[in-house]
Amino acid sequence: MQLIDGKKTSQAVKLEIAQEVKQMISSGMKQPHLAAVLVGNDGGSETYVAAKIKSCEEVGFASSLIRFGNDVTEAELLAAVKNLNEDADVDGFIVQLPLPKHISEEKVTEAIDPKKDVDGFHPQNLGRMITGADAFVSATPQGIMELLKRYNIDTKGKHAVIIGRSNIVGRPMSILLSLKGNPGDATVTVCHSRTANLKEICLQADIIVAALGIPEFLKADMVKEGAVVIDVGTTRVPSTETKSGWRLKGDVDFPNVSPKCSFITPVPGGVGPMTIVSLLLNTLKAARHK
Amino acid sequence: MQLIDGKKTSQAVKLEIAQEVKQMISSGMKQPHLAAVLVGNDGGSETYVAAKIKSCEEVGFASSLIRFGNDVTEAELLAAVKNLNEDADVDGFIVQLPLPKHISEEKVTEAIDPKKDVDGFHPQNLGRMITGADAFVSATPQGIMELLKRYNIDTKGKHAVIIGRSNIVGRPMSILLSLKGNPGDATVTVCHSRTANLKEICLQADIIVAALGIPEFLKADMVKEGAVVIDVGTTRVPSTETKSGWRLKGDVDFPNVSPKCSFITPVPGGVGPMTIVSLLLNTLKAARHK
Repeated sequence: MQLIDGKKTSQAVKLEIAQEVKQMISSGMKQPHLAAVLVGNDGGSETYVAAKIKSCEEVGFASSLIRFGNDVTEAELLAAVKNLNEDADVDGFIVQLPLPKHISEEKVTEAIDPKKDVDGFHPQNLGRMITGADAFVSATPQGIMELLKRYNIDTKGKHAVIIGRSNIVGRPMSILLSLKGNPGDATVTVCHSRTANLKEICLQADIIVAALGIPEFLKADMVKEGAVVIDVGTTRVPSTETKSGWRLKGDVDFPNVSPKCSFITPVPGGVGPMTIVSLLLNTLKAARHK
Repeated sequence: MQLIDGKKTSQAVKLEIAQEVKQMISSGMKQPHLAAVLVGNDGGSETYVAAKIKSCEEVGFASSLIRFGNDVTEAELLAAVKNLNEDADVDGFIVQLPLPKHISEEKVTEAIDPKKDVDGFHPQNLGRMITGADAFVSATPQGIMELLKRYNIDTKGKHAVIIGRSNIVGRPMSILLSLKGNPGDATVTVCHSRTANLKEICLQADIIVAALGIPEFLKADMVKEGAVVIDVGTTRVPSTETKSGWRLKGDVDFPNVSPKCSFITPVPGGVGPMTIVSLLLNTLKAARHK
């Protein structure tokens, strides 16, 4: 069993990005700039956004954070999006989800200029990903593809089973893995809460992507010997062993599943760190396109 | 075995559309208007466009046809698209594919206003289909979904195997069938030219959608007893029995596969007639939205 070390890989990618930023600046280009919009003070969102900004500093990007209270109106948020669309210094930006219930996430997402949509959530980017055209691919799927590539994991003709059909992980993963290319060219099965015979299907999988958000859902008796297992789960569970009082659990029963795997991502330290790196890569791409 | 009669169903849907058009006009709305752009004189394209225009007449739509020679420039074609985008009388329009090699189909498709893109090929419509937002779904997949609905074929929790990953049939079918809803909520496997064990996978399928374009590819020994088989293939093969010198062949070995099926679509008279009906439904929807 080989551990897929997302932390180490993400650091390697960050070094590459930092190098490229230096070259861009020395060739007279401006510093890439990522902006984030944060509404309210959800603990998870605060942590994610802080980590994104810290990563910007690490690679030499400019970053800015625009904060709103939970009582921001949809119109105010849309106006902020419009400003960012028009701000020539901002190469890409994200609006951290979830948003308060009185604001339409669909409307806000679609208001973002697809060329600055480094989260890859705009329908235009999703659609272009399908057709294989140039697009911003959302961070988590792109991070997984990068891990598969850097660990030379062969996906061509392999059977990949994706558990979960979310717009931001399961669905794009199922598309990316079945597109022509490398990684890609896999036979892909999309499973979800309505799937009747999940265990039977998982047992056929050469590659399993667990992205349903139920801690330790994937058990050893659902995984065939030699499978590649990618764990996208990041559920906070109470813990007496940490200062914060919680720790992250993945969707995979790691201690029992990992001995059967050829490759497996741990939680934390697997897919998570790659997610932020993908956002940086998208921002770099947006800056280069300009 | 029950035959899924696309011809009969399409006629029923056309009657429904014609009724609605009458009501729209009597309530003071304008006649829905579908325009088609045809480049060159490819036999298949000529036939398809002629059939689309004939169908418009049948349901009471206005239609118009804009023709260009094979030597049209990309700029000329893009100008025609812009005109149609801006023409308030045109509710929806299509640019018949394929286009000559010197013209970028991607550029032309993306130039179409997504609100008039009744073919559903614009990335924005593909992307919105993924997120489950309101979108124009491309004609063939939508026609298949309509057949499944009208024949009360249960897809929830069923295993659907899609053979083919094209942007206009296989890919959207795999997404639509695995989205929440009815029809939908199926466990979906996408197979293609790189799939290693196609027969084994097909034998697990409750529903097979054959959309690869190889005549009589799907054989009886690849289909389990009681399966639903949807044949999207429409390859012209030479024939001495027809005046035209050719006839349409599907991707399914119909004589041998059909006895095993609970439901099956014939070729011709299955999915084909539903394709045009979907285009009419999309045009009606575009007209209603205005």
